[in-house]
Amino acid sequence: MPSEQKPRIVETTFRVRFAETDLMGIVHHATYVVYLEEGRSEYGRQVGSSYAALEELGFSLAVADINIRYIAPARYDNLITVRTWLEKMQSRGLTFAYEVVNADTAQLLVTATTRLICIDHSGQVHRFPEAWAAAYRQAATSA
Amino acid sequence: MPSEQKPRIVETTFRVRFAETDLMGIVHHATYVVYLEEGRSEYGRQVGSSYAALEELGFSLAVADINIRYIAPARYDNLITVRTWLEKMQSRGLTFAYEVVNADTAQLLVTATTRLICIDHSGQVHRFPEAWAAAYRQAATSA
Amino acid sequence: MPSEQKPRIVETTFRVRFAETDLMGIVHHATYVVYLEEGRSEYGRQVGSSYAALEELGFSLAVADINIRYIAPARYDNLITVRTWLEKMQSRGLTFAYEVVNADTAQLLVTATTRLICIDHSGQVHRFPEAWAAAYRQAATSA
Amino acid sequence: MPSEQKPRIVETTFRVRFAETDLMGIVHHATYVVYLEEGRSEYGRQVGSSYAALEELGFSLAVADINIRYIAPARYDNLITVRTWLEKMQSRGLTFAYEVVNADTAQLLVTATTRLICIDHSGQVHRFPEAWAAAYRQAATSA
Repeated sequence: MPSEQKPRIVETTFRVRFAETDLMGIVHHATYVVYLEEGRSEYGRQVGSSYAALEELGFSLAVADINIRYIAPARYDNLITVRTWLEKMQSRGLTFAYEVVNADTAQLLVTATTRLICIDHSGQVHRFPEAWAAAYRQAATSA
Repeated sequence: MPSEQKPRIVETTFRVRFAETDLMGIVHHATYVVYLEEGRSEYGRQVGSSYAALEELGFSLAVADINIRYIAPARYDNLITVRTWLEKMQSRGLTFAYEVVNADTAQLLVTATTRLICIDHSGQVHRFPEAWAAAYRQAATSA
Repeated sequence: MPSEQKPRIVETTFRVRFAETDLMGIVHHATYVVYLEEGRSEYGRQVGSSYAALEELGFSLAVADINIRYIAPARYDNLITVRTWLEKMQSRGLTFAYEVVNADTAQLLVTATTRLICIDHSGQVHRFPEAWAAAYRQAATSA
Repeated sequence: MPSEQKPRIVETTFRVRFAETDLMGIVHHATYVVYLEEGRSEYGRQVGSSYAALEELGFSLAVADINIRYIAPARYDNLITVRTWLEKMQSRGLTFAYEVVNADTAQLLVTATTRLICIDHSGQVHRFPEAWAAAYRQAATSA
């Protein structure tokens, strides 16, 4: 997206589930991968083109890589906010960036990026459908 | 199956994963539902008609109900055995029974039953395919 | 609780996560155990005595048994409501009952009960602390 | 470890569970984080100093960052091998590298690294206990 535009940041907030903790008393690190996916789902809802819409067009997003930095732990019943924005959009892939914070204290818990690629029903990498991609591009900036 | 025959009991053994524990330091109770499913998967493999085979015939098993009694906890790295047997077979459903034990101490951790029903691709309840059901019936007894 | 009083029903609503689906395209049956726990957590919050409060007193609730009947499937992005109420309270245990419904269509997806027992730090069954139990009893009825 | 020495590679093999798949019919990408942890657990067992041993000394390993590249999907019932080796050891942290392959076809599914740091019971970063670290260093090379 143009450098002069700020990315639109989408937030989703929810509580840590008991089942998501481990014997260290903290949220298991694999759970954040699910939290990031929740961030992307909410992003799709707010820009008006959810995963469901992409799938109706015969495509889906496959996670190509994921990078997570764990800064501080979350605990049972903590209120968590995932902040998601589109960092980069290419013809066949998207890169999302995230911050996961404690919604009550604003403490930063996790930063992450994930790169997703567009695949068709046979699993082959494919260019994004125009209309769907346009909706993302347009919605990806706040101004 | 005929009352004079003893059910065939299939065992599968594996270790508790760290991610399966919760902040109580024990395996989260939802995890046992996955363990029971592992017991059924192994059962299917040993009787020569796995879920994959049923799905190739256009059907699948849907869990209709599940009853679990939790007797003692399991912990990280514990070696667990799930003992699975077919308790009842009907034209449209199966009931499996289970014991989950600590493989090292033989302590009984969980007893459970699950009833599964045969559904087709539209989600409608359906009679089991003959050949598949026959394989189950034949294999369900040890004698 | 007295038979002339209606139980207080607590609701919590959330969306199905992508990670909670399985290759059948529906929410995996083990996930409902986590949904029920979410129902109990919300129940605890609304009656003013969460699990955290019980744990501060040196006790916790252990799931003793669980019975789930699966009636209809839920799918990705479905909005789900868990309705939770206290069905029975005893000196050492609680039984919760649940209905899980599709929040948009009101379709009933799952009915369930879970029995929980009070245990101390050594894992021994124990009577509930008076004050905590009183809060539950008082809050368990709507009138 | 000295550059002239080859790292010891530890393998663990298991089957994909049904619950680990998602509605795309493949293993959900968050599941690989659990698979990598299984690789580390097996690594600890084979070098004679498991997580349990570290915890008895009053310390634990916290995941500091994780980087995963998804190359090909795995499916229900696939036999999976996680190959784990110690890529780097520092006074306060370890970096493990991984390859996840289909055990039947040898197809590479995932490559990953995770960095873990040693923390004490208060959550503070700490140097590894000498004896525990020495066991790791010694065992980390094949020659």
